[in-house]
Amino acid sequence: MHNPDHSQDVTAGEVLAPYLHARAADFLRGLRLHGESGSDTAGAEEAARTLRGAARRIGGTLHTFRPLLDTAWADQLRTELAWLSGTLALEQACTSRLVRLVDALSRLSNGGGPVPAARNAEGGPGITVGAARAGALLERQLTLARTRAHSASLQALGSARFHAVADAVALLASEVPLGPAGAAPAIEVIDAPAELAERRLLDAVAALPLTRAAHPYNADALALAAGEAQDAPWHQTRLLLRLHRYATEALHTGGEPDPVLYEAARALDAHRDAAEAAAAAAAAARTPRIAPATAYALGVLHADQRHEVEAARFAFQRAWHRTTAPVVS
Amino acid sequence: MHNPDHSQDVTAGEVLAPYLHARAADFLRGLRLHGESGSDTAGAEEAARTLRGAARRIGGTLHTFRPLLDTAWADQLRTELAWLSGTLALEQACTSRLVRLVDALSRLSNGGGPVPAARNAEGGPGITVGAARAGALLERQLTLARTRAHSASLQALGSARFHAVADAVALLASEVPLGPAGAAPAIEVIDAPAELAERRLLDAVAALPLTRAAHPYNADALALAAGEAQDAPWHQTRLLLRLHRYATEALHTGGEPDPVLYEAARALDAHRDAAEAAAAAAAAARTPRIAPATAYALGVLHADQRHEVEAARFAFQRAWHRTTAPVVS
Repeated sequence: MHNPDHSQDVTAGEVLAPYLHARAADFLRGLRLHGESGSDTAGAEEAARTLRGAARRIGGTLHTFRPLLDTAWADQLRTELAWLSGTLALEQACTSRLVRLVDALSRLSNGGGPVPAARNAEGGPGITVGAARAGALLERQLTLARTRAHSASLQALGSARFHAVADAVALLASEVPLGPAGAAPAIEVIDAPAELAERRLLDAVAALPLTRAAHPYNADALALAAGEAQDAPWHQTRLLLRLHRYATEALHTGGEPDPVLYEAARALDAHRDAAEAAAAAAAAARTPRIAPATAYALGVLHADQRHEVEAARFAFQRAWHRTTAPVVS
Repeated sequence: MHNPDHSQDVTAGEVLAPYLHARAADFLRGLRLHGESGSDTAGAEEAARTLRGAARRIGGTLHTFRPLLDTAWADQLRTELAWLSGTLALEQACTSRLVRLVDALSRLSNGGGPVPAARNAEGGPGITVGAARAGALLERQLTLARTRAHSASLQALGSARFHAVADAVALLASEVPLGPAGAAPAIEVIDAPAELAERRLLDAVAALPLTRAAHPYNADALALAAGEAQDAPWHQTRLLLRLHRYATEALHTGGEPDPVLYEAARALDAHRDAAEAAAAAAAAARTPRIAPATAYALGVLHADQRHEVEAARFAFQRAWHRTTAPVVS
């Protein structure tokens, strides 16, 4: 079904079902991978990634097309899938945050070029020493958090709660519980929910300070005290963009994903990652009894990641203007 | 003499003399202002600014047009003027560095918007507390440095060495000691030195990583350990751009300064100021026994100012491409 024209013969349920069946099958494949992975870390990671991707897409579809579905069932499964993908995401988030921060520290303290060690004097109270200590501190803290997240994942995947989710998804692989509107012709009912998802996205983007973000080096993201408050609308836009992408996937099964929209989504992912890495650096700096050199390097790192937040906003507005120039104008 | 055409009747000395006479007169006016300023701080600042501006322009002209002048005299006076303008610049540099750093701390810790205090949690170990302490530390250190610079200025202006400079400049207000080439027709000898100054500038700019600087958020300037080494060619370009501007002033007396070239020069000034402010933050962080929160805020501040360094490079390449597009292409 490529760009279906939703003829009168096709019900909304018939349009959505193949997408939900396929994502449910992905989920079950992830489950199988998880069972087979044993102590194979790479296999376990792929299993978790597959489970998460499928859970996000099913949950997003249940959210967007809720009016066409059995709403009690959809709401319940969506809540459980959100719990599951949130739990599974934590371990990977700790790993990638650590990699991001250690890479940034290395870039900050090595200068990235063939610079003689003797020129390092300018970089603060031994930025190299401070960076090494800060890196060790972050590694300790994030490795601990990752270990906890790993245990939480394993516990979740072994829980009765998870088995109930897996059973529900297994049923979804063959049957989608529809509401009354799900039996209506797709042409009449299926566009409105997708358009609502797009409208929410467009409204959220319209409320972002994109003109400001288009001015490089505006230093907005470096207003540290305003950090969370100024980040929230961008994080919200990231979620709405994801819902919009999944809705598009569901209605154009087999179609090519829009590469520019994908780039915009990547920019918002980077925005989120940098904001969380900055927060992790700030949190590490609150560790009692750290040396001033360590605190200093964490301050540099915090500002550096907020710089990356700003860079991600710049990248988003650039991608977005290419994506929607015809839609918005 | 507006855009002189350097006819055969005009000697090189006759072209340069009015400019040097005028700058020497500026210098003497600055000296008078200094004598009259007494305890009037604003007056003393204006006097120092006038003296410095005149000293830089005379020194630059002696440097660029050295082949046309009495070289022994030019070299000697230029050395003395460099000493004087360097000494006088320090106090103002301390003041503006402090203002820059305190403004940045305020921007970093206040968030620039109506953000409730309760949202400040993200900003590290009390970024507000750390910023206040860092500000107090910087104020102490830079005020001390400024007081020392002020004493050094006063001492310099009262010294026999300064009086010798003032005497030499007073002579220059009425007579320019020329070399043999100074009596040659301007059309034959005056363009080569000015073109050499321009060529040096163009070569220096060509060696800058402008393509890289044109990519916003490249994070080059945040490679802290490479700080001084990567800044040097930009600082050198700043000096060469100044020499070029002064040479242009000398040959087009009364002409309008090129606003875009001025903008490029301002960007390189901002580059230098931000680099020095970053170094001051780094130096403050090396103060023994500071609290981790203070060190943290200084680290944020250091990275913030390196961010400004990068922003200045971006601004320079943008201005430069407008300035020289016809020249370079």
